Amino acid sequence: MSLNTFGHLFRVTTWGESHGPAIGCTVDGCPSGVQLSEADLQPWLDQRKPGTSKFTTQRKEPDEVRILSGVFDGVTTGTPIQLMIENTDQRSKDYGDIAQAFRPGHADITYHQKYGVRDYRGGGRSSARETASRVAAGGVARAVLAQLVPELRISGYMVQMGVQGIDRARFDAAVIGGNPFFCPDPVAAEAWAVYLDELRLSHNSVGAVIEVVATGVPAGLGAPLYGKLDSDLASAMMSINAVKAVEIGDGMAAATLTGVENADEIRMGANGPEFLSNHAGGILGGISSGQPVVVRFAVKPTSSILTPRATINARGEEIDLITKGRHDPCVGIRAVPVGEAMMACVLLDHLLLDRGQTGGVRGRIG
Amino acid sequence: MSLNTFGHLFRVTTWGESHGPAIGCTVDGCPSGVQLSEADLQPWLDQRKPGTSKFTTQRKEPDEVRILSGVFDGVTTGTPIQLMIENTDQRSKDYGDIAQAFRPGHADITYHQKYGVRDYRGGGRSSARETASRVAAGGVARAVLAQLVPELRISGYMVQMGVQGIDRARFDAAVIGGNPFFCPDPVAAEAWAVYLDELRLSHNSVGAVIEVVATGVPAGLGAPLYGKLDSDLASAMMSINAVKAVEIGDGMAAATLTGVENADEIRMGANGPEFLSNHAGGILGGISSGQPVVVRFAVKPTSSILTPRATINARGEEIDLITKGRHDPCVGIRAVPVGEAMMACVLLDHLLLDRGQTGGVRGRIG
Amino acid sequence: MSLNTFGHLFRVTTWGESHGPAIGCTVDGCPSGVQLSEADLQPWLDQRKPGTSKFTTQRKEPDEVRILSGVFDGVTTGTPIQLMIENTDQRSKDYGDIAQAFRPGHADITYHQKYGVRDYRGGGRSSARETASRVAAGGVARAVLAQLVPELRISGYMVQMGVQGIDRARFDAAVIGGNPFFCPDPVAAEAWAVYLDELRLSHNSVGAVIEVVATGVPAGLGAPLYGKLDSDLASAMMSINAVKAVEIGDGMAAATLTGVENADEIRMGANGPEFLSNHAGGILGGISSGQPVVVRFAVKPTSSILTPRATINARGEEIDLITKGRHDPCVGIRAVPVGEAMMACVLLDHLLLDRGQTGGVRGRIG
Amino acid sequence: MSLNTFGHLFRVTTWGESHGPAIGCTVDGCPSGVQLSEADLQPWLDQRKPGTSKFTTQRKEPDEVRILSGVFDGVTTGTPIQLMIENTDQRSKDYGDIAQAFRPGHADITYHQKYGVRDYRGGGRSSARETASRVAAGGVARAVLAQLVPELRISGYMVQMGVQGIDRARFDAAVIGGNPFFCPDPVAAEAWAVYLDELRLSHNSVGAVIEVVATGVPAGLGAPLYGKLDSDLASAMMSINAVKAVEIGDGMAAATLTGVENADEIRMGANGPEFLSNHAGGILGGISSGQPVVVRFAVKPTSSILTPRATINARGEEIDLITKGRHDPCVGIRAVPVGEAMMACVLLDHLLLDRGQTGGVRGRIG
Repeated sequence: MSLNTFGHLFRVTTWGESHGPAIGCTVDGCPSGVQLSEADLQPWLDQRKPGTSKFTTQRKEPDEVRILSGVFDGVTTGTPIQLMIENTDQRSKDYGDIAQAFRPGHADITYHQKYGVRDYRGGGRSSARETASRVAAGGVARAVLAQLVPELRISGYMVQMGVQGIDRARFDAAVIGGNPFFCPDPVAAEAWAVYLDELRLSHNSVGAVIEVVATGVPAGLGAPLYGKLDSDLASAMMSINAVKAVEIGDGMAAATLTGVENADEIRMGANGPEFLSNHAGGILGGISSGQPVVVRFAVKPTSSILTPRATINARGEEIDLITKGRHDPCVGIRAVPVGEAMMACVLLDHLLLDRGQTGGVRGRIG
Repeated sequence: MSLNTFGHLFRVTTWGESHGPAIGCTVDGCPSGVQLSEADLQPWLDQRKPGTSKFTTQRKEPDEVRILSGVFDGVTTGTPIQLMIENTDQRSKDYGDIAQAFRPGHADITYHQKYGVRDYRGGGRSSARETASRVAAGGVARAVLAQLVPELRISGYMVQMGVQGIDRARFDAAVIGGNPFFCPDPVAAEAWAVYLDELRLSHNSVGAVIEVVATGVPAGLGAPLYGKLDSDLASAMMSINAVKAVEIGDGMAAATLTGVENADEIRMGANGPEFLSNHAGGILGGISSGQPVVVRFAVKPTSSILTPRATINARGEEIDLITKGRHDPCVGIRAVPVGEAMMACVLLDHLLLDRGQTGGVRGRIG
Repeated sequence: MSLNTFGHLFRVTTWGESHGPAIGCTVDGCPSGVQLSEADLQPWLDQRKPGTSKFTTQRKEPDEVRILSGVFDGVTTGTPIQLMIENTDQRSKDYGDIAQAFRPGHADITYHQKYGVRDYRGGGRSSARETASRVAAGGVARAVLAQLVPELRISGYMVQMGVQGIDRARFDAAVIGGNPFFCPDPVAAEAWAVYLDELRLSHNSVGAVIEVVATGVPAGLGAPLYGKLDSDLASAMMSINAVKAVEIGDGMAAATLTGVENADEIRMGANGPEFLSNHAGGILGGISSGQPVVVRFAVKPTSSILTPRATINARGEEIDLITKGRHDPCVGIRAVPVGEAMMACVLLDHLLLDRGQTGGVRGRIG
Repeated sequence: MSLNTFGHLFRVTTWGESHGPAIGCTVDGCPSGVQLSEADLQPWLDQRKPGTSKFTTQRKEPDEVRILSGVFDGVTTGTPIQLMIENTDQRSKDYGDIAQAFRPGHADITYHQKYGVRDYRGGGRSSARETASRVAAGGVARAVLAQLVPELRISGYMVQMGVQGIDRARFDAAVIGGNPFFCPDPVAAEAWAVYLDELRLSHNSVGAVIEVVATGVPAGLGAPLYGKLDSDLASAMMSINAVKAVEIGDGMAAATLTGVENADEIRMGANGPEFLSNHAGGILGGISSGQPVVVRFAVKPTSSILTPRATINARGEEIDLITKGRHDPCVGIRAVPVGEAMMACVLLDHLLLDRGQTGGVRGRIG
């Protein structure tokens, strides 16, 4: 099956291929009466847009989003919101080679195996171009969250490129937007520029780790046991192209802790419970605790590289393949705004779900 | 909201609390005509059963599963299968302390915040006791898989306890069932026995990493883009109690690789494509490739420990809390059969989904 | 596929066969903090219980419901509520004949065709016995509605038996509970007793029309365009055994009206809009208007009769079949509490859905 | 909530308003490898297109559908298919009156009550214009059905306009396409032309009954108990604008039958079971029997009429309202292709569902 919808109440259905006439998504279940225009969405798309530095694909796409439905007189009407982004830079070329060959590490072969046919132009449906639709939908979610939970903030950034991690001691939120890597460590950002340039020029690519943090998330969000907030975040992040792992809070490192170390002790603050640490990443039993929600995910290196790799084609012939074209040397970079968008969609979805079941009433403490 | 169903076509709905009269699940969408009896399910439950060694909770539960519907004359009828497990060891005790206090690192506080009320006996709905239902459902999935894909095998084991990992060079599948840890490395298993005993006696607990591998998985399973096989596995594993991270294939380490390293090169074998490595963990673009499907997940240490931790109660009073009771010092151990069960359910679900859309026909190679 | 769950947020999953050990359902997504015990559910089950008059099946079932989960200290916890009803009167008999034969007008043949196997004891999963689970779930929905919308009332009754309709001029809600037919017309009730006795003694059965009305339903419920309130009611009522048609408001008769006749004119009352008629049955554009929600459904006659009918068996042999056993001469009678239960579940589900998206805020008039 | 997706595996998500820039839908879960182009869809849209006779709205819309994704090299790829229809005839006008007034019998008031805001231009989202998207999606379903079940045929027609029904003795499938009413009775068609002209000129409108029949439907389709084929058809048809009732087989008349009359007796034919009558409308226990699937639905009269009706506006003022504009005097006419489209979508969805669970294997008879 193909299944191109995510979310329970706030539901996003995406469509479109890399080199078709357009891509887009339908955002359904959005609350009504929220101010929304293209101008609210475009800044998020501009963050993900290709061609903004030499470290991303040189494809030139304006990624201008149009709202085709669901908004009237400047506010959402509660009916489905259609967002469309036209593909403008569909360079005409001969796809003869790649049309029959399977790039190692790429979905080419599995799409062929599953469907028996695939749109090979630029990766078709498996292209990361689809994530532009997610970013647009995330913009809608942000506009709603801004009205319902004004104190909520979402921040994504890269914490590791290849083997080079950031130094948390140098974490500076102010520099995230000031370098091509969404890197919060200014020293690492400079080192990454050199590192990635070398990789790019040697016809190689590299992986990355992205962290997305949401603060101001109300306690009580999550639908245990199978719509837990962390389960849904894991599913959302893992669905992003090239993601191979998702961590909540301490993530894999939680395995190395003892129970004494891992316990986030609780004190009573002026406005309710306060935790002395956040190993849990803001989620306990699948429900938000009011602490920052912390998610990390690993992005594998781009599989489309100029270095020849051994593979086969659809006729079963063994070949060596070089993938020409305009590819990101570190696809993780542009995954940062995508991860933020998925966080926004999941949080709003759970806010609506929780409001549906509980009416938003909370168990008192103190 | 609470959402206690998982799966698209093969759907499992679980119910029940740790200290209620019973727990169980409804398995819906199961193919008809599959031989099934309690005897097919019980061995899997026995693997997860508490009290099998000094390294698991000393609660004594026979965990005997009864089939109440959906099976007639020894075969499944295609109608919902109800599986019920009675709780027998519900030790009568005074829950006065824990009823009002929130264990640090536990879902006590978030259930209270969300629902305003919680069944505090043994953790209620947030107890890992619920995973017995998953194992029972997984047993049904295995029976169906055995008929539809006889060559498919699922194997789970622990690869790390706290800071101690296994040595992959000593990997021996034959020893997994012969130690209390589902450990494939006989040397590590002995070390872990000493290590965990010390932790237990010092009133502490510890985390773990579990790996589950499925071989013989047909190519073509997965429902991109939002029902990708890896997304659904991530959601399934993250929904298990205490899990904080999920990895596919190389997982977090994929971030450290270059594109040249990460490319699983392909050659043509006698029976179709053969991959020279498996960084991808058997999944490309959210679709199985025919390689082994490899999932790992990290389990945090048990939060119920005998060491006092700072916390608060529902009245907002600051207290120090010791959690008495019969708790697993390493809850990761019993997560092994649970992870296997979730793998079985997800794979069968995707097998049915794929058959629905494509009829099981595959794109030919060669 | 089999699909045994209904509802979006308030979800009911039923299981069990007519002659298995038990039947039941899981009620998921229920708001927490609602007082609930078996005593709240049993009265509704008693209304549907077999054997209460000579006009229903003589099978003797106490239909005692047990709550196995989701309720603690007398209130719902927000976690799944498991309701179980044991089957006690599973008369041991030789099913040799019916096991291989297909009753005309019955699901015997289609279950065989679809699943290749069926539980033939008492109709198995296709038996109307399953509706006891719906009535139990409806009892939970009513308890929640009583807290959230205290003024809401649901009333079901039979308006037609075979060719004999009620006289609306004699409608008296007070007599509905005082005759074996849930009939609101005391004269018709007496006539039906004679009519049905004759049919029963001549080894025949007969159909019926049931009407269910909900008053006090807030305006604004419904999830257009594919979760419209009337769509969901149609689906819910059509899913009841033997139902062949569903009408909203004027129903089929709406086709005979002109636009001038059909317009429910609106005036401004003290508490908002007031309608001068209710051809619409309280639903416009799939959304409740605040008027009474009016649903009717037709129930076909019981197919299990003592008069021989031509049919075939699984070996393809042509036979004449008489269905012995304890069957309802007018299965429509016991469909009345079932229709009420479905109405309760659908309304609560939409109340929660609406609260999720809109927060329950309403557009003002005046 | 709004919920704009229908279907389980073959899922259609529609979007767009009457007077926005475009309307459309995403068709997800479609099998791959099916030949499809705009030319396959356009003929169905042309049947529903406005302005084809004086008996439908005089709005002029070419209703040209574009395929934006999911089709490559002339065949479906298994990925989401986006269908878009631009709105061209959005006559600029002053909506001052209708913007604040609620047409009696129309969804104006309930959209206002639910969402607090509505797109009043031409009815916005509640306009029957949305059904063009359904017809386009139905065209995709038909293309797939033509490949999977070539013998399946779907035929819709009008059997009643206002108080005037057809004479079944004069039923002639060949004349359905030859009159403006999709009427299978040539005498009735002429009478209706006179009848509707009178109603139209007297500023009135009228209701209708549509029948849709599918022949060649395989036995075994349907997902009991809550995805029964008849439940899903009821939901699908009731979701069409202005529909107030849905019947399967004998429908409401089934209530008047005795069990002896209602039993569709079965004989053994050359190719399997043959039924001597079809009171059931081809569905038993929610599963198709192989007989023709027969559905009827009642469409209420258009509420937008030129005769003044008493109503209120959003300020709560009582007014008399005349609805100017270009409205269908009998909206039931254009509901015929819509009903066919919904039948096609539901049947394909259940074909895929059934194939998923059972693999399409059938229980043998004989």
